[in-house]
Parts: sequence; structure tokens; C-alpha cells
Amino acid sequence: MHEERAVVERIRVRYGETDAMGHAYYANYLYWFEQARGAWCRANGFTYRSLEQQGFKLPVVEVGARYRGEVKYDDEIAVKVWVSEMRRASIKFEYEITNESTGVQTTTGFTWHVVVGETMKAVTIPSFLREKIEPPVQ
Amino acid sequence: MHEERAVVERIRVRYGETDAMGHAYYANYLYWFEQARGAWCRANGFTYRSLEQQGFKLPVVEVGARYRGEVKYDDEIAVKVWVSEMRRASIKFEYEITNESTGVQTTTGFTWHVVVGETMKAVTIPSFLREKIEPPVQ
Amino acid sequence: MHEERAVVERIRVRYGETDAMGHAYYANYLYWFEQARGAWCRANGFTYRSLEQQGFKLPVVEVGARYRGEVKYDDEIAVKVWVSEMRRASIKFEYEITNESTGVQTTTGFTWHVVVGETMKAVTIPSFLREKIEPPVQ
Amino acid sequence: MHEERAVVERIRVRYGETDAMGHAYYANYLYWFEQARGAWCRANGFTYRSLEQQGFKLPVVEVGARYRGEVKYDDEIAVKVWVSEMRRASIKFEYEITNESTGVQTTTGFTWHVVVGETMKAVTIPSFLREKIEPPVQ
Repeated sequence: MHEERAVVERIRVRYGETDAMGHAYYANYLYWFEQARGAWCRANGFTYRSLEQQGFKLPVVEVGARYRGEVKYDDEIAVKVWVSEMRRASIKFEYEITNESTGVQTTTGFTWHVVVGETMKAVTIPSFLREKIEPPVQ
Repeated sequence: MHEERAVVERIRVRYGETDAMGHAYYANYLYWFEQARGAWCRANGFTYRSLEQQGFKLPVVEVGARYRGEVKYDDEIAVKVWVSEMRRASIKFEYEITNESTGVQTTTGFTWHVVVGETMKAVTIPSFLREKIEPPVQ
Repeated sequence: MHEERAVVERIRVRYGETDAMGHAYYANYLYWFEQARGAWCRANGFTYRSLEQQGFKLPVVEVGARYRGEVKYDDEIAVKVWVSEMRRASIKFEYEITNESTGVQTTTGFTWHVVVGETMKAVTIPSFLREKIEPPVQ
Repeated sequence: MHEERAVVERIRVRYGETDAMGHAYYANYLYWFEQARGAWCRANGFTYRSLEQQGFKLPVVEVGARYRGEVKYDDEIAVKVWVSEMRRASIKFEYEITNESTGVQTTTGFTWHVVVGETMKAVTIPSFLREKIEPPVQ
């Protein structure tokens, strides 16, 4: 549940993710956050898809992002992602993006997710998921 | 089922729909085609959503588009859409886009859809839909 | 510069804006915020495009959104947008989205923009823009 | 210029690329085609970005796609891409997508591009680019 358990996902910026200003359009960072979350799950022994197959979803209930630096077409970015907080039924991911093509740290952000069951109602985070997120001390 | 029953949907181009070339990115036309199809349904007495609620879906099985002229941020485009062909289980929509901000006809395209039921298998177009698409001669 | 000068932009949700959860994907709200900002400009006597033609851009430097309620395909949403703050070189827009198809107020959010000139450096908000945003008391 | 010089680009499907039908939305394949084109360029000793820096652009003038099979969230797809035709000022790319998560070949497509110079006018394909696309026989 800490930054030391962060996972880094590398993404090459698509042409279709830029806008007429010549930079990546601000909404696309949220796609990259999502891709990085998926990589975080995979690195921690499960997939978000498998969660859904078990009847749980993690819709986003809050997002924040501060845009810094430049990200352009064909730049390779590294999205560092980690779980920074966990409550009874919700989880916070944080993100730090570095533009590897320029070496500059750029956008940072976070997302809060609520864990819901089949009826989209919030549920206590199931223990198998809690242990993935915060492994018990050995 | 003919061009004279065409519907026109007006759309203002979003900044996020442009790319670093300064024009609308080519994939976004497919979103506009879809919005125009939805408008066509509404103009013909039903909604695509209601179709899905009745257990039918119209996934796209083929798309074609020829890009002409320029479409930029904040341009208002008019997407003319009509059903040009109907078979036992499939429907073809055609599209002509005019850039109303410049007066130039730009992209044209088509989509073929197959009508599927709940299990995503092709089904004969139900008569209530067939009559919407090709009203019986009075 | 206050909520009473808010503008409302109506948008119908595209199928391509939904995701496998059946709701609008969280990044798409940022496109809708942008469309609403453009409408705000137009309602206040200028266009964002004209700003760019005069050499100014308003890149987003921060975004925040709290997602509430449900927004699904074909829902019509009303995005209320207003300028809530203005500093020497930056502007804050706020947003409140109501799902008009269900009557429920859903997502709220804000964006901070910095005003930059041709070289993408922050500049003092030019007076003609400042007066659009905060009209002098008559 | 033939299929034997094809390049394969692997892409994991994002949640935001799916729609309420549970499959990838049809417009997103055009983003994947673009990403694969970029990979093709890179595998052939240049980048599309470098082309633009030299004053050339390759806007899409025509696209076609036939959608087959299913592509869902988290599936890993392999986009096979090659140049299938070259004329004085235009280039055709073809694409074949295999869903590696299911082993099924799915969508195929093509894009035609015209080579333009700084003023967006068609130009003869420059020899350095022609040689990348169709290497001289040794």
C-alpha cells in the first residue's frame, strides 16, 4: 500500500492522443492511469478483469491531475502507479508520469475507487483483494 | 430506405477530437457516424437504446470512409445519414459530412451492421424494425 | 466570474463514450467539460478558437472531478459551467453535470487553465479576455 | 512492400476502449492501426515523427475495416501491419488483428495515405522514404 510497491507502465503516445496544440489531450492521461492500474493489478497477482468476473467492480469516484511539462506524439512515458490508501470500501491509486523521451517528470494524479458488487452498491473490500493490496507481514 | 429519407445531425468539433496535424483525427468520424445513426433512429420513431432494451443489437461489421477536405476545431459539421440497403439480417447506413463552417463537403462513409439477439447471433430483422426502416407504402 | 453567469451545454452521450460497465467512461467527462467551456466562451461573445488565432492558448494545468450517479448511453446531460476564479495568468472553470434523462445531479468538477502566449509561456490575461470573463460594472 | 515484411504490434485493450456492448468500440481499431503503422516505421529504420520533422505528413484519405470475432477488455491483440501498395504520392497499409487471448483472427483493414508537404499538398514520395518502404534489391 505504499509507494515502494509502485509499478511502472510504459506507454508510447499515439497520434490520436494529441490535439491541435501539439500535446497530449488532457483526457488521455485518464486512459493512461487506467492502463497503469491494470498493470499494477497484474504485477500483484491478479487482473482487474478477474475481479469483475468474481462480481466486483472498482468504478472511479474521484480523479485529480496536475499537468506539468510536455508530452507529445511518439514520446514514451512511464506511468508510476501505487495504492496510497485503502478504506473499508474504497481504494486510492496515485500516479506519476515521467516523459522518458525528454527525461522530465510531468503529470501527477490520483483516482479514488469504490468497490462495488453486482448491484453497483459499495461493499467491504473482500479479503482476497485486501491481501493483494496490502500483503500481510510475513 | 433511400437517400430522400436522410437525416442530418449537426456536431461541433471538440478540441480533443483534433490531433497534432490540426485536423480532426480520423477515428473520430466513426463517433460522428454513430451519433448520426442515433439521430436517424430518433427521427424515425425509435431509439437505438430501445432496440437494445428489446434484446437487439446492431454491431458494426464493416466500415469504410473517404476523407476529403478539412475539419478543424470548433467547425460545425452536418452529418447526413440514411439507410441505403437492408438484407435479411443486416443494414447499411451511409454518411456524407459537410463542413458547415467552410461550406465544403468532406468525408463520406458507410457502415454495415448485423442485427443480433441476446446471444450475439445474427437474427432476421424483426418486423417492427423493418417497418421503421422501410415504411410500408400507404 | 460567478455562478450566476453560468452557461448550460446539453450533450447526448455517445455509445462510444460508454464502457463495458455500461456507464460513461470517466475520461469522457473531460471532453464534456471542454465542450461546455467552448459554449461558455461563445455565450460570452468570443470563441476559444478566436483566442488561439490571437495568439493565446488556455492549456489545462489541473483537473478534478467527483463522479456521482449514473450516466448511460443516450442519456442527455446538462453541463453547467462557469468561471469561478481568475488570477493574473490563470482561470478556473467549474462544472456541474445533471443527467436530464434521470433528473439526477451527477458529476462535478473543475479545471484550472493558465493563459499562455505563442511560446507556451504564461502571460498576464489580456484585458479584452479579462473583460469577457469579468465584465466591468456598468 | 509485401506482406513478408509485415511487423506485428501487440496492444492490450483498455477498459476505456470498450463500450456498453462489452466489446472494443469500432473506432478504437483505427487508433490501433495507427499505433501499428508507427511500429512499422520504427521497424523499418525511421519514425513517423521524424517524417513530420522533415516536412512530410501522411494523412489518411481512406480507411476500411471488417470486424470479425470478439475483442474485450484486457485482451492482448496482435496487429500485423504491412505496406501493400505504393503509388507516386500515396501509400496503402494493410492490417490483420489476431486476438491473442482467444487465438482468433479478428478484424482486418486498410488505410490509404497521401504524402503531403508543409502546405498539405500532395507531393511525390521522397526517395529516402520510398527506399524505406521498398528497399532496393541488393
